[in-house]
Amino acid sequence: MGRVLVQVMPKPEILDPQGKAVAAALPRLGLTGFVDVRQGKRFELVVEGPVTPEVLAQARKAAEKLLANPVIEDVVAVVDADAADQAAHAGASA
Amino acid sequence: MGRVLVQVMPKPEILDPQGKAVAAALPRLGLTGFVDVRQGKRFELVVEGPVTPEVLAQARKAAEKLLANPVIEDVVAVVDADAADQAAHAGASA
Repeated sequence: MGRVLVQVMPKPEILDPQGKAVAAALPRLGLTGFVDVRQGKRFELVVEGPVTPEVLAQARKAAEKLLANPVIEDVVAVVDADAADQAAHAGASA
Repeated sequence: MGRVLVQVMPKPEILDPQGKAVAAALPRLGLTGFVDVRQGKRFELVVEGPVTPEVLAQARKAAEKLLANPVIEDVVAVVDADAADQAAHAGASA
């Protein structure tokens, strides 16, 4: 079973009240190092077989047609989830 | 300005009505290759300086205390966003 990861964020010029609420709450928890927070969405699309270029193309279509609202959101990533996980762990340990 | 990426997903045993709604809508758009969809959250935490190990530790604390509800959600990644972006592009081109 392959998994495609789709990540969607509010466009930079769009107000993001959820992100602002998080940013306001962090100092109350004693976490004072952060100057801004943006909140978006993360989808995992599961396919039967491996994540082929055709699957990624379908996922990109899904991202643009359904997962993101192009008026207010950007699709920031459409990637093979397992490759991304490995990369994230490599990044986290760097 | 550094950015920390925090990714949160519903636990596998938790029903995910948003993901189910997306999974049901995909075939109506002619996208029939996907067998399941899960929907989670993606946060970008912005810091003044670079993303140091201390910043990542603070972000991990924020993720556990505020960004995820540990009863129903897992924190699946807390990484330097710029490193993750590079890795994602490397993964996408692979």
